[in-house]
Amino acid sequence: MDRVLVQTNVLKANQEVAAENRRLFAGEGTVVINLMSAPGAGKTSLLEATIPALKGQYNLAVIEGDLQTDLDSQRIRALGVPSHQITTGTVCHLDARMVARALAEFPIQKLDLLIIENVGNLICPASYDLGESLRVVICSLAEGPEKPKKYPVMFHKADFVLLNKTDLSPASGHDLKDLMTNVWEVNPRAVVFAVSCKTGVGLEDWIACLREVIASAAWQSHRGYESSNLCSQA
Amino acid sequence: MDRVLVQTNVLKANQEVAAENRRLFAGEGTVVINLMSAPGAGKTSLLEATIPALKGQYNLAVIEGDLQTDLDSQRIRALGVPSHQITTGTVCHLDARMVARALAEFPIQKLDLLIIENVGNLICPASYDLGESLRVVICSLAEGPEKPKKYPVMFHKADFVLLNKTDLSPASGHDLKDLMTNVWEVNPRAVVFAVSCKTGVGLEDWIACLREVIASAAWQSHRGYESSNLCSQA
Repeated sequence: MDRVLVQTNVLKANQEVAAENRRLFAGEGTVVINLMSAPGAGKTSLLEATIPALKGQYNLAVIEGDLQTDLDSQRIRALGVPSHQITTGTVCHLDARMVARALAEFPIQKLDLLIIENVGNLICPASYDLGESLRVVICSLAEGPEKPKKYPVMFHKADFVLLNKTDLSPASGHDLKDLMTNVWEVNPRAVVFAVSCKTGVGLEDWIACLREVIASAAWQSHRGYESSNLCSQA
Repeated sequence: MDRVLVQTNVLKANQEVAAENRRLFAGEGTVVINLMSAPGAGKTSLLEATIPALKGQYNLAVIEGDLQTDLDSQRIRALGVPSHQITTGTVCHLDARMVARALAEFPIQKLDLLIIENVGNLICPASYDLGESLRVVICSLAEGPEKPKKYPVMFHKADFVLLNKTDLSPASGHDLKDLMTNVWEVNPRAVVFAVSCKTGVGLEDWIACLREVIASAAWQSHRGYESSNLCSQA
């Protein structure tokens, strides 16, 4: 059996478990976000900026994926929200089976929103469906504007793209407009939010959109969840 | 044949080709750097800052690895140095066979220094020996100080670690000292350079160290190249 065939079988098996996860989530009316980015683009900072605005109104939980350490789970638990850490060792992405196993220890009943923070990697996680409702990709402006062109698979499959660290635009010399143009060149249907998790700029639009998605999922849960066209592009 | 066994076989086959590459490089007295980082940490910017200082004195060439585009090779060729682009498609790392194939089109005779810029990924490239003399990892201070702890394999195997974008320390709020402490916690033998490819700060030490490595390799080439302890830590 060669490497390509093994990879194809791995992805097929993953897809089956992802479909089970998705049925489970849909049955509960839980919106599930697969949050992906390169290392240090601001996934956990986004959660720290988002969770306080939502947790009084909704039931939230987080699954954290990292090669090593539970530093991110500690940051989430400090916000008063349950967080389950998956430590992958050397595996460069989460897969649907890891999430299914986490759910066995982490009951999702009555959850409005489950956010799965994937391993920091702009390549491999894009190939593994976890059963999520939405794929959200964060890209740091400090990484430069050409990332969507160089990592197109990740951006092509994203529902929402957050361009973070916009406060570093003057210091880094990178132009937000160039980055936006490159996102839309790869994925014209992506809903894009320009934000700074540090200063809070732009987060109100992202949070308002999440509220809309959660409300819509609750309303639609008896007939299955549709993620497309929920938020209109600002 | 299961996935783990296939992976083991893939790495073993890679190691054999890497050993052939290494023999070829040693026979030519060519120093080969495997340059790795997360997306946007500054690999190509480092080359743009390093090459002009060395190209008058040494014969240099670059191999660029990217999923898509030859943007980086264009940037290197603009410096008057030959660059060969490897486009990996969806493969998240370079491997020794890709490098061996590139060498067939890209003769390395009389090269003092070959720099292989790997795919932007802080996980997978660490597992694939290319036959390099030195592993150099760049980490951007804008990514935050905890990356070495969260991606330990990459940092553990590094000979040199460059901490880039130090000019963003005030704007990002991240402390260089915290990042350095975390690098040495994972890899106490790493030679660390704090640099800004944008302002040029710290690059003179890095370039002086590269000169020392090249001179030493030329001198040692008849008896094989040793990478350790060539540069003393500043």
